Amino acid sequence: MCVKSPSNKSRISRAASACEVRGAIGLKRVLVTGANGFVGRHSLAPLMERGYEVHAAGLGPRAPFVPEGVLWYDTDLLNPVSCRDLLAAAQPSHLLHFAWYAAHGLFWASPENLRWVEATLSLLRHFRDAGGVRFVGAGSCAEYESQAGACHEERTARKPANLYGVCKNAVQEILAGYAQTTGLSSAWGRIFFLHGPNEHPDRLVASVIRSLIEGRSAKCTEGLQVRDFLHVQDVGGAFAALVDHDAKGPVNIASGEAVSVRAIVEIIARLIGRPELVEFGALPTRPGEVPAIFADTGRLNNEVGFRPRLSLEEGLGRTIESYR
Amino acid sequence: MCVKSPSNKSRISRAASACEVRGAIGLKRVLVTGANGFVGRHSLAPLMERGYEVHAAGLGPRAPFVPEGVLWYDTDLLNPVSCRDLLAAAQPSHLLHFAWYAAHGLFWASPENLRWVEATLSLLRHFRDAGGVRFVGAGSCAEYESQAGACHEERTARKPANLYGVCKNAVQEILAGYAQTTGLSSAWGRIFFLHGPNEHPDRLVASVIRSLIEGRSAKCTEGLQVRDFLHVQDVGGAFAALVDHDAKGPVNIASGEAVSVRAIVEIIARLIGRPELVEFGALPTRPGEVPAIFADTGRLNNEVGFRPRLSLEEGLGRTIESYR
Repeated sequence: MCVKSPSNKSRISRAASACEVRGAIGLKRVLVTGANGFVGRHSLAPLMERGYEVHAAGLGPRAPFVPEGVLWYDTDLLNPVSCRDLLAAAQPSHLLHFAWYAAHGLFWASPENLRWVEATLSLLRHFRDAGGVRFVGAGSCAEYESQAGACHEERTARKPANLYGVCKNAVQEILAGYAQTTGLSSAWGRIFFLHGPNEHPDRLVASVIRSLIEGRSAKCTEGLQVRDFLHVQDVGGAFAALVDHDAKGPVNIASGEAVSVRAIVEIIARLIGRPELVEFGALPTRPGEVPAIFADTGRLNNEVGFRPRLSLEEGLGRTIESYR
Repeated sequence: MCVKSPSNKSRISRAASACEVRGAIGLKRVLVTGANGFVGRHSLAPLMERGYEVHAAGLGPRAPFVPEGVLWYDTDLLNPVSCRDLLAAAQPSHLLHFAWYAAHGLFWASPENLRWVEATLSLLRHFRDAGGVRFVGAGSCAEYESQAGACHEERTARKPANLYGVCKNAVQEILAGYAQTTGLSSAWGRIFFLHGPNEHPDRLVASVIRSLIEGRSAKCTEGLQVRDFLHVQDVGGAFAALVDHDAKGPVNIASGEAVSVRAIVEIIARLIGRPELVEFGALPTRPGEVPAIFADTGRLNNEVGFRPRLSLEEGLGRTIESYR
């Protein structure tokens, strides 16, 4: 593990002093894992805005997008020693855990999912053993029964259709059981569909935007499948809100708006001004494609009190800007 | 890790030669973890009878009850390096995994359950990476909804009431997903209630037997709760059968007979000849006590083809003998 900024020595002394203060004035110190990931990076600023001292860990050096004031740790969480060292150095009161295997297309079925279950449980145990009080993990709509339509945290059955969903669901169940047994506070944000800067270029929104900006035709399916898309900035903001709340258990992180993929592509085409380049029906619907999956966001909106700042169109507009 | 018998050098050379043979004549080489445990030890002889070369691992030295011909490994599976070394040395084609945290009374809620999830997934990955073909794990009736009554592997909902059941259930779900993704053959034996030699003295059957043998009164509840008890020798035999079959997924390991605790105590009292020492109703029913939980054993009996050798009375007779 390598602490990038400020220097290791000053950081650790600062952490010690902050630790003393915590007891007196309730300092909130959060450790974010996967903090250089597509979603994780967008949780850092909102956490600072909520008054957290933010410690951020990811594989690799500190990136330019990490806000000033955030303490960066270059850490491989698959290494148990690094994991313990990280917790000993950061001494977090809160943990927001995004780190997971996320290689586009491969992550659904990869045995790496098992390694991340192991690493997550190890992180959870060591976090609590080191005095942590609240753990928030990142789950997925892939945990729900795939024919579910509108997904509700408690009422909708969980029946993951792939190893990724199975492993995320298993971690959520263990986290809930562990929290109930030990008194740890914990929540689990189930992410639905998202878009934003730096998304993998082969994913739907990124691929359509790039095609249209570059003047190429965008081949699409009929696009009748219904999804729930949220801009990644709002996803990051929602997780910050969840860390800063005492809601327990699973919470859907989504817009709550059921929109067809066709409608999303049409908005993108209109905003870029190249609707003639979109070819609906040029691609066949993928086998096993789920007709509709979207979120009931009652818990997020009413209990946690978070509502997205960006409308679907505003969000897509920002994503388009990031690709220009 | 320490290989106790035969010597490390001869064992490894023997393993290498057996490995060469496997391809030619289909040698079956099973590694049993938790092989010195209450259940695990009873799987060793039945596996040998089925033609397996048996490698057995447990924490501590080889015990006298380990049958001759079994290769013993003194191994701590919570140490990832030991786990990899064990698999490299044993090179098993089959793995029967009993090892878990089992301290009486404590195991239901212990954070050690998380460590055993981690260790089990690590073992599973390394087993498959080393060429293993079939993995059988030990689950529990604690995975089922506690008000279930007759538990069927597929039809009965899983809703564990404690951290132990949550963790066992999570491992089963991940194992099934991993097996489906990788093509590994796997099964999961859900153990119900059992009795036999060397059980913890505070458990029901052991405690009643000891009291009556020693001429002390045995204080019991009314004993109206209904359970499914199997002698541990038959539990070991059932797991050996499951290893030696290609049945996939969960299989209940039980008698299939629903019997009240009162009836069990009455059989014990009759066999020992001290019915006057039993005081039914002297203890209050424990809060949250499940009225009835027993197994549908259709899969075990008809698909796997295993039937217990001992009737309830024969089994209890043997257990009593072991305490005299």
